[in-house]
Amino acid sequence: MTTETDSGLTLYWLEMSRSHRILWLMEELKLEYKLKLFNRDPKTHLAEPALKKVTPLGKAPVVTDNGKTVAESGLIIDYLISKYGSSSSLVPVDADEEFNVKYFLHYGEATIMPIMVLLYVSQGIRNSPAPFFIKPLLRKVAEQMDGSYAGPDSVKELEYLETCLGKTGTGYFVGNHLTGADIMLIFPLQMAVGRAGLNEEKYPLLWKWLQDMQAREAYVAADSRVKEEAEKTGFKLGKL
Amino acid sequence: MTTETDSGLTLYWLEMSRSHRILWLMEELKLEYKLKLFNRDPKTHLAEPALKKVTPLGKAPVVTDNGKTVAESGLIIDYLISKYGSSSSLVPVDADEEFNVKYFLHYGEATIMPIMVLLYVSQGIRNSPAPFFIKPLLRKVAEQMDGSYAGPDSVKELEYLETCLGKTGTGYFVGNHLTGADIMLIFPLQMAVGRAGLNEEKYPLLWKWLQDMQAREAYVAADSRVKEEAEKTGFKLGKL
Repeated sequence: MTTETDSGLTLYWLEMSRSHRILWLMEELKLEYKLKLFNRDPKTHLAEPALKKVTPLGKAPVVTDNGKTVAESGLIIDYLISKYGSSSSLVPVDADEEFNVKYFLHYGEATIMPIMVLLYVSQGIRNSPAPFFIKPLLRKVAEQMDGSYAGPDSVKELEYLETCLGKTGTGYFVGNHLTGADIMLIFPLQMAVGRAGLNEEKYPLLWKWLQDMQAREAYVAADSRVKEEAEKTGFKLGKL
Repeated sequence: MTTETDSGLTLYWLEMSRSHRILWLMEELKLEYKLKLFNRDPKTHLAEPALKKVTPLGKAPVVTDNGKTVAESGLIIDYLISKYGSSSSLVPVDADEEFNVKYFLHYGEATIMPIMVLLYVSQGIRNSPAPFFIKPLLRKVAEQMDGSYAGPDSVKELEYLETCLGKTGTGYFVGNHLTGADIMLIFPLQMAVGRAGLNEEKYPLLWKWLQDMQAREAYVAADSRVKEEAEKTGFKLGKL
């Protein structure tokens, strides 16, 4: 897949989306890149139409690398680390680590993320504007959605991930260093704080991991980079 | 990840699930493997608890390969083709094909599948047992769910995939031969027939692709293998 674009690396970043972890990764890898910011439509919460010019599906994140378009978070993470990470500490040290990182690159979007999306949808149903006599019914629909699948499943996945951190015992999901697995998992686990009861008491290892990741120099730099770029271009942050 | 299991390859197959495409792949690769069949709970539609003994998350498909557990459809497809496909025609012929196959291995679960799941959930809300005066409201909740996101998005993705087949012009999603991309995409596209209006008139290329894939010798063999195994073990097929 190629598209007309600038030379070098560019990240197309959408607010409140899977994009931010890619920015974090680019900072971890100390890459030179351009950053293009996009808002969501405040009503539909969908990406603004301008994003469609970069990718046929109008979604983010998308990275372009000298005319080559790379989409899908798992593939972007794999691609950036394989191509630009050789001198970084993010590269898996052996075949076992490589396998486990690949596993989480799929797991992050294929297994845990759809559960977070369902919890987001049921929250939308619960909070949607409706006459007072309809509200209890909407709540019931949302409760049934959560209760039959997304609720128990989110607990199962969080308990599983807590166990994974217990097994490595290193504060990382694979090996004793930051890998693509940590980059991939931060977004669903950040969502799990507000939606699935991820807190310090219930999931101490996940909680500590989250604080540690968000305190990394590169993570803080990613936040700053967005703010700088927003100031420079007059982009409005925090509309949602 | 390792677990106690038999030697050789084993596929843990769950009815009405992502498992069947892995069985199809194993037949395409002419592998020797054991097949273990699992039912869903007719009420909750979740996998029966026995599956938990194989994987910590109690989900299917899972493949074990001499004690190594491989989970996540995208990883399983990648793993089987990389490890056992070298003499088959499923291996990408160059770096471009390899990149595009990887893309679809992520896209299949990360992008199109969650939309199909949302359409499944809204259908559940629409069809859930409720007093007659509640029914119209449930229909409205389901319509709003579909209308605001899953409905338009499913059309967008199907149109995009139709374009992909138009671009290759070969009847396959990558290159001029069967790859992991076709294996990955069959399940969401089979779901799209019942849930997202995938038919011959609207999406002629996708429709033809679906018929062609399902008519392949290995696909038919996968169906037969499940029936044989079910007869041999007294497993009840078609409970859902």
